[in-house]
Amino acid sequence: MALEPTPGDKFSFGLWTVGWQARDPFGDATRPALDPAETVHRLADLGAYGITFHDDDLVPFGSTDADRFGHIARFRKALDATGLVVPMATTNLFTHPVFKDGALTSNDRGVRRYALRKVMRNLDLAAELGAHTYVFWGGREGSETDAAKDVGAALDRYREALDTLAAYTVERGYGMRFALEPKPNEPRGDILLPTIGHALAFASTLEHHAMVGVNPEVGHEQMAGLNFVHGVAQALWQGKLFHIDLNGQRGIRFDQDLVFGHGDVLSAFFLVDLLEHGGLGGAAVPVSVPGDAGGPVGTPAGQGGDGVGVTSGGPVYDGPRHFDYKPGRTEDTAGVWASAAANMRTYLLLRERARAFRADPEVRAALAASRVPELAVPTLHPGETAADLLADRTAWEDFDPDKTALGGYAYTQLEQLAVEHLLGAR
Amino acid sequence: MALEPTPGDKFSFGLWTVGWQARDPFGDATRPALDPAETVHRLADLGAYGITFHDDDLVPFGSTDADRFGHIARFRKALDATGLVVPMATTNLFTHPVFKDGALTSNDRGVRRYALRKVMRNLDLAAELGAHTYVFWGGREGSETDAAKDVGAALDRYREALDTLAAYTVERGYGMRFALEPKPNEPRGDILLPTIGHALAFASTLEHHAMVGVNPEVGHEQMAGLNFVHGVAQALWQGKLFHIDLNGQRGIRFDQDLVFGHGDVLSAFFLVDLLEHGGLGGAAVPVSVPGDAGGPVGTPAGQGGDGVGVTSGGPVYDGPRHFDYKPGRTEDTAGVWASAAANMRTYLLLRERARAFRADPEVRAALAASRVPELAVPTLHPGETAADLLADRTAWEDFDPDKTALGGYAYTQLEQLAVEHLLGAR
Amino acid sequence: MALEPTPGDKFSFGLWTVGWQARDPFGDATRPALDPAETVHRLADLGAYGITFHDDDLVPFGSTDADRFGHIARFRKALDATGLVVPMATTNLFTHPVFKDGALTSNDRGVRRYALRKVMRNLDLAAELGAHTYVFWGGREGSETDAAKDVGAALDRYREALDTLAAYTVERGYGMRFALEPKPNEPRGDILLPTIGHALAFASTLEHHAMVGVNPEVGHEQMAGLNFVHGVAQALWQGKLFHIDLNGQRGIRFDQDLVFGHGDVLSAFFLVDLLEHGGLGGAAVPVSVPGDAGGPVGTPAGQGGDGVGVTSGGPVYDGPRHFDYKPGRTEDTAGVWASAAANMRTYLLLRERARAFRADPEVRAALAASRVPELAVPTLHPGETAADLLADRTAWEDFDPDKTALGGYAYTQLEQLAVEHLLGAR
Amino acid sequence: MALEPTPGDKFSFGLWTVGWQARDPFGDATRPALDPAETVHRLADLGAYGITFHDDDLVPFGSTDADRFGHIARFRKALDATGLVVPMATTNLFTHPVFKDGALTSNDRGVRRYALRKVMRNLDLAAELGAHTYVFWGGREGSETDAAKDVGAALDRYREALDTLAAYTVERGYGMRFALEPKPNEPRGDILLPTIGHALAFASTLEHHAMVGVNPEVGHEQMAGLNFVHGVAQALWQGKLFHIDLNGQRGIRFDQDLVFGHGDVLSAFFLVDLLEHGGLGGAAVPVSVPGDAGGPVGTPAGQGGDGVGVTSGGPVYDGPRHFDYKPGRTEDTAGVWASAAANMRTYLLLRERARAFRADPEVRAALAASRVPELAVPTLHPGETAADLLADRTAWEDFDPDKTALGGYAYTQLEQLAVEHLLGAR
Repeated sequence: MALEPTPGDKFSFGLWTVGWQARDPFGDATRPALDPAETVHRLADLGAYGITFHDDDLVPFGSTDADRFGHIARFRKALDATGLVVPMATTNLFTHPVFKDGALTSNDRGVRRYALRKVMRNLDLAAELGAHTYVFWGGREGSETDAAKDVGAALDRYREALDTLAAYTVERGYGMRFALEPKPNEPRGDILLPTIGHALAFASTLEHHAMVGVNPEVGHEQMAGLNFVHGVAQALWQGKLFHIDLNGQRGIRFDQDLVFGHGDVLSAFFLVDLLEHGGLGGAAVPVSVPGDAGGPVGTPAGQGGDGVGVTSGGPVYDGPRHFDYKPGRTEDTAGVWASAAANMRTYLLLRERARAFRADPEVRAALAASRVPELAVPTLHPGETAADLLADRTAWEDFDPDKTALGGYAYTQLEQLAVEHLLGAR
Repeated sequence: MALEPTPGDKFSFGLWTVGWQARDPFGDATRPALDPAETVHRLADLGAYGITFHDDDLVPFGSTDADRFGHIARFRKALDATGLVVPMATTNLFTHPVFKDGALTSNDRGVRRYALRKVMRNLDLAAELGAHTYVFWGGREGSETDAAKDVGAALDRYREALDTLAAYTVERGYGMRFALEPKPNEPRGDILLPTIGHALAFASTLEHHAMVGVNPEVGHEQMAGLNFVHGVAQALWQGKLFHIDLNGQRGIRFDQDLVFGHGDVLSAFFLVDLLEHGGLGGAAVPVSVPGDAGGPVGTPAGQGGDGVGVTSGGPVYDGPRHFDYKPGRTEDTAGVWASAAANMRTYLLLRERARAFRADPEVRAALAASRVPELAVPTLHPGETAADLLADRTAWEDFDPDKTALGGYAYTQLEQLAVEHLLGAR
Repeated sequence: MALEPTPGDKFSFGLWTVGWQARDPFGDATRPALDPAETVHRLADLGAYGITFHDDDLVPFGSTDADRFGHIARFRKALDATGLVVPMATTNLFTHPVFKDGALTSNDRGVRRYALRKVMRNLDLAAELGAHTYVFWGGREGSETDAAKDVGAALDRYREALDTLAAYTVERGYGMRFALEPKPNEPRGDILLPTIGHALAFASTLEHHAMVGVNPEVGHEQMAGLNFVHGVAQALWQGKLFHIDLNGQRGIRFDQDLVFGHGDVLSAFFLVDLLEHGGLGGAAVPVSVPGDAGGPVGTPAGQGGDGVGVTSGGPVYDGPRHFDYKPGRTEDTAGVWASAAANMRTYLLLRERARAFRADPEVRAALAASRVPELAVPTLHPGETAADLLADRTAWEDFDPDKTALGGYAYTQLEQLAVEHLLGAR
Repeated sequence: MALEPTPGDKFSFGLWTVGWQARDPFGDATRPALDPAETVHRLADLGAYGITFHDDDLVPFGSTDADRFGHIARFRKALDATGLVVPMATTNLFTHPVFKDGALTSNDRGVRRYALRKVMRNLDLAAELGAHTYVFWGGREGSETDAAKDVGAALDRYREALDTLAAYTVERGYGMRFALEPKPNEPRGDILLPTIGHALAFASTLEHHAMVGVNPEVGHEQMAGLNFVHGVAQALWQGKLFHIDLNGQRGIRFDQDLVFGHGDVLSAFFLVDLLEHGGLGGAAVPVSVPGDAGGPVGTPAGQGGDGVGVTSGGPVYDGPRHFDYKPGRTEDTAGVWASAAANMRTYLLLRERARAFRADPEVRAALAASRVPELAVPTLHPGETAADLLADRTAWEDFDPDKTALGGYAYTQLEQLAVEHLLGAR
C-alpha cells in the first residue's frame, strides 16, 4: 500500500534524531540513549532506506581508536544486515565547549585547525561508508554581539576551510558533494549564513563551487518567517538542492524539530508537490500516478493561450527525504518509534494528495485560468532585443494598463482547490 | 560642527519619503502632497547631498509627454540651484493595479513587457540626471499562495528581465550599476528574493553579474529577524554593497520605515561603525578621527598574540547614506522636515560614538583580549596543504580540547564597552 | 449537503470584507466599490446568515442626515428581503485623519469626545438593527514611541470611555454586549490591549465588566506568534468569548486577513473543534454527528483510569462564525464572491473533519492513553485541604519521581491522528 | 558615584543566573558549578542587595533532609555575613523529567499533587528566609499540540493550585504575595498564560486575587514581539507589578537572557524611566534629581490647555530590580562576574539618562507640545453624563474633524530627544 514506506521512497533519518535523549535548555534527559546498531535495525523495520550521522553520534567524543573501530564495525554490520545505506554524514562542531565560539570561524585559530582535522577524519569515514553528501551546519559560527565577530574575516575563514576540505575530498577521490545547512539563530544569537539565500551566495564564491550546494531545513527557514517552498525552489533553480532536512515548526520561535507536517501542513503539501513534481508551470501537463496507465511526466502541454509553447515543471529532487526532527520530550521510547513512523506516513499522505492535485482536471483548468503556465513563456519574443522591444508599440504606447488591471487572477479559487486536496475532500 | 550635516556626509533621501502622504492600510492621507522641486530646496537647506526618485514620484503616472518634460525641467532647475545630485533612481512597479501580480514576474506576459518598457524609460531619465545606481525593489514579485507562482519560472523571467535591462544599459553606455533590494513580505504574502542572501545568490546567476549588487534596507532584513549588520557585512565581503537604505524598524512585524536609529539603535551603532570603518578585526589599529593629528586608517597593527600578522578591517562603504523612511502619520509638514533632520543627526551622532569606540585604547585591548583580530589570520600556515595539516600533531593528536575550552572570550565586557560608547558614557 | 452553508451555520461577514477595494500601503485600489444592499443579497445567496458593519461602511463619512437615512433604509430593505440579520456592529475610529493618534485614547481631548459621540450614534443604529454585540477594535489606540503615550493615562481614558458607553447602552435598554478586539500592532507601532489576555485583564477592571468580553481574531493573535486556540480557550473559560473573527494568517508579519484555513490550517482544525465541541477532556465521550442516530453530546464518560469521574468538554461557542478577511488584491469581483464562499466551505470541511475526529474510537483511546481527560479531575480529593495534602505520604514522601518520569504521554500519536483526520485519511 | 551599585539600588540576582553552567540545546556545560554561599559573597561585593533562588538551586534535587539543612545553613550564614536579603523565591517545576508534561497542570494527577507539595516545601523555606514575593513560572505548563491539552481543564487546575497555595500561605501567616511569570513558548511549544495580559486576566479569576500579581520578564514579552514597556505599564496600572525580571533579548527568537540593555536598549531606557518615574503624563512636572535642591516629584503642573488640571505620572515600582539573565556561554567565570556587574551598571546609566530626560526643559516643552499630559485629563467634564455629552454641540455637531486633523503631534521630535538623551548627547 502506498502509505507503507519502502526503501524506494528514500526516507532517511539522523542517528541523533530518534536518538535524542530530550535534554533541553530547561530540563534533563527523559529517555535513555539508543544503541546505533539497534537504531539501524528499527529504522529498517519501519521502512527507511538510509541513516546519517555526526561523527560523535556514532563514536562518542574522545573514544580511543580501538573503541572507535569497534563502534564503526558494529554499525557497519547492522547496515549490512539490513541493507540500510548511509547517504550523508556530517561533523559535530557544536557540542564540546571547545567550539563555544565556533569551529571553522572561531576567533581562536587553534580551534579552527582542530575543527578542520575533525572534519577530515569524519570525511574519511563518510567516504568509507559510501556517503555521497557531506553536510556542514555551522550552528556555532556566529555571535551574540556585533563587537565579537569580524564577519568579513569570518567569511574569509569559512571559505578557506571549505576550499581546503573540498580540495582534500577531490584529491582523495571521494566523489562527495558538500551541502551547507543554513540557520538564522540558536544556539548562537546570530548564525553566519542564516538562510538558504546567504548560503547559496557564499557558495558561489568558493573555489570548488560546483561541488557545494545547500541542505535546507524546513524549520530553519520558517524560524525567519521565510517561505520554505520558495527557498527550496530557488535552490533547485540554481541546481543546488543537494540534500533536504524535513521536519515541522510552528512559526518564528525556538527550533522545534517537530514531526514533518506537524507544523505548517499546507506548506508541507506544497513542498512535497515541488519535490515530487517540480514547478507548477508544468502542471497543465498530465502527471502519471503509480497504478495509472499514465502518460509521461512533464511532457509539454502544447500551446498556451497566446500561441507560445509551455514548458514543464522544471527540475525535481531525487535525493533522500531526510527527517531531521526530534521526538517530543514527553515521549517514551515507544513514542520515539511511533514518531519516526509518523514522519514517513505524513510524507506519503501528502505525496498522495499532491498527486491527486496534479491529476485533477479542475486544478489544471484553474492553473490555466490563473495563467500560471504563462510565466514559463519568455517575456521577449525569440531573438527580440531591447531595441526591438522599444519599437513594439503594443508593449507600451498601445498598452492600456487600466484595462489589463481589470482582470482577476483567481488565485483564491486555486488555493481553495489545494486546501481541499490537502483535506482529502476532492 | 560634526553634528550639522553637510554634502560631504553624502546623505540622500527619496522623494517618496518626505513626500509620503501617510495613507496606510487602515487610514486616509493626513498630509498634502509635496512639490518635488520644493523638496529639493528643503533637503538642500537641511544639509542633504542627494535626492532619489521613482519615475512616478517625479512625473505622475499617465502624464502626457509635455507634462512630463515640464516636471523634469522644474526638478532639474531645483537641482541646479541647490547643487543636490541624483545618485540613484528606481521604477515604481507596484502602485498601479496592473502590477497586482508583479511586474517583471507577473503571470501575465503583457504586463511583463510593459514593465520592461517602464523601466527602460526611467533608466534613460536616470542616466540623463546623472544617477550611478539603479535600484530594483520587486515588492509585487511574489505570491500569497504557493499554487499561484512557479518560482523557478519566475526566477527565469527575473533573470531574463535583468539580463535584458543590463544589456540595454551597457549598450547605451549609461555606466550604471543595478542594486536589488530584498524584502521578505508586504505587500505580497511572500516576496521573491526575500533577503540579502537570496538577492546575492540570484545576482551570481546573471549574465552581467558584475554590474548587479544589492541595496539592503535596515527594516527589510529586521522584518525577518535577521542581523542587518551581518547581512551588510556579507554584501561588502562579496563586493556587492552598491547602495544602502537606512531607516528604523521595531522587530518582526509590518514594514515601519521609522527614522534611522528609532528602532534597534544598538544595531544602528554597529552598522555605522561597519560602514565607516570596516570590520572590527582592523580595530586594534588606530583610526584617525577628524581633527586628530591622526595616523593612517587601517594600517596593520603588527603582530597578534601568536606571532602572526593582523590585517585591517577590510572594505568600507563610500556610497550615499540613503534614508528610505516614512515620517510618522501623526506628523504635520513641519514634523516631516524635523524627521528628515533627525535621520541625519542620529547618523552623525552614531558616527561620533563609533569613532570614539574605535579610538578608545580600552576597546582595542578588549578586542585583542577577545581575539577578534585573530580571525583575520589564515587558519592554514602560508603554503600549508591539507596533507601538511594532517601531519601536524599539534592540530589534533596533541591538541587538548578540554584545556582550550577553559578560556573565556570576554565578549560581554566588549559589548558593554560598545553599549557605554553608544550611551556617550565613555 | 453538509458542505453547503445555510443560515443555521451562523456564518456572517463584515460589509468591509467583501467590500475591500484592495488599496494597500504600496498600491491603489484594484476593484470598484460594492453596494451594501447588493452585498446583502449576494451573501444571502451564498448561504450566510448575518452581516456586520462599521458606521462608515454603511453610510459614507460626512453624509447628510437625509443621505444617511436613505442608506440605512436601502440596507434594511435588503435585510428584510433576504432574512439576513445584523448580529454585530462597530465603529470606524481609524480611517479619518482626525483619529491619527487614536480615538478613545487620543492625546487630544476634543478627539476623544468626538469619538465617544461617533460610537454613541452608531450604537443607536446597531440597536435599531437588532445587533446583540458591539465590537471595539482600537487600531489607532497606541503609539510608535514610548515617549508619546502615557499608557496608564491611556488606560484610564479607555476605561472611562467604556464605562460611559456601557452605562449609555444599559440606560437605553439596548441589551447589547461589548466585545474588545485585540491586535498587537499595525497600523500603530504598538497597539494598547495587544492580545486576548490584555483585553480580558482590562475588561476585569471595568464598572460594567459583566457585559464586556472579547472578539478575538485568528490573525491578530498569530501576528504575535501566540496559539490562537489557547487564547480562545482562555476566553471561553473566563466566559468572555462574545464574538469571533475568523480568517487566515501566515505567521508573524503584517495583517494578512486571508481566507479562513488558508494559513495555519492545522490550528484552524483545532479551533473549529473547540468552538463546536468544547475542550478535548470531554472527548472520551461520544459526540453525536448529524445524521447519526447519535447519543447525547458531552455526557460524562463514567470513570477515568484511577477511579475518578471525568467531566465533559466544557463551554462551547454558539455565536456567529464571523469572517473578517480580505479578498486577495489579485482578485476581481467574481473572485471576491468565490473567496467568500471559500471561507464557509473550509469551515464546514473542518467541522466535518472535527466531528469524525471526535467520533473515532481510536482517537478516544488515544486521548485516554495520553491522559487528556485526567486533567479534568481535581488535583485535591473532594474536601481535601492543604493540611490534608501535607499529610498524604503518597503525594511526596512515597512518590517516586524517577519512576513516574519513565511513562510517556504518547502525544505524537495523538497529533498524528489529528493530522490524518484533517487530511481526510481516516 | 552614581554608577557604583549600592544596596539602596535594590539590585537582586537569581542563584541560577550567575550559576548557569552554559549547557544549551546543542552543547555541554562550559563552566563549573558555583557555590551558592560564595555567590552571595561575590554579589555583595559587586553591590547587589538581594539574591533569589529556586529550591533546587540551593539544595540539589533529591538531597537528604540533613544535606538540605546543611545547604540552607551555609547559605543563611553567607546572607548574615553580607547583609544580602532574599526578596523572592520560586520553585523548580521544570528540570526533572517528571515535569515533562507540566507540574500544576500535568495531565498526570499524581504529578500535580507532587508539584503542590514541592511548592509548599519551598514556600516554608522562602518564608523562613524572609521572602516577600513568591514567583510562579510555569514553563512546562503547556503543550506542543492542541490535541494534548484541554486548556479549560488546565486553567481549572492552575486556579485550583494557586487557590490552594494562597490559602496555605495565608493560613501560615507568611505575608507573601504571588507573582505569575508569563512566557509564550520554550521549553513547551506553547505555554499557558503566555503574556502579561493573560496572566493578569487569569489572576483576576482567583479566590485570593488580591495577593496575586505578575513578574514580567523583558525577554519573555519581546519573544512575542510585544512592547515590554506597555505591558509593564498595564501591570502597574492594575496594581499588579509585584516583581520584575530584567534582561536583554534581540527580538522574536529563542529565549536569550542577555545582559540588561544588551538588546533593545531604547526600550530599556523607557522601561527604567517608567519604573523610576511613572508615566510621562506627569513629566511636565519637575522631577528631583539626586544632588539637586529639587522640588517635589509629581506635583501637578497647574493647568492644561483647556483649563483642566494635569495629574502626575502615576504609580512607580519600588521593588527589587531583579536580573534574570544568563552569562554568555563563551564567558569563563571571570566573565560571569563581569556580566553581573554590567547589568547593574547599564541600569544605573539608563537611570541617569532618564533623570536627565525628565529634568530637561526642552523635553517638558516637547511633551506639552505633543499633548502627552492632556491624556491625564478626563474626557468627560466633572459630573458630565452620556446625556450631557449628547447635548454638547461642540463635541459633534460643531466639531470640525478635517480642521482638527491638520494638527501634528510632533512625536518624532519627542522621540529624537529621547534618543539623544539615551546617547548622552544632551
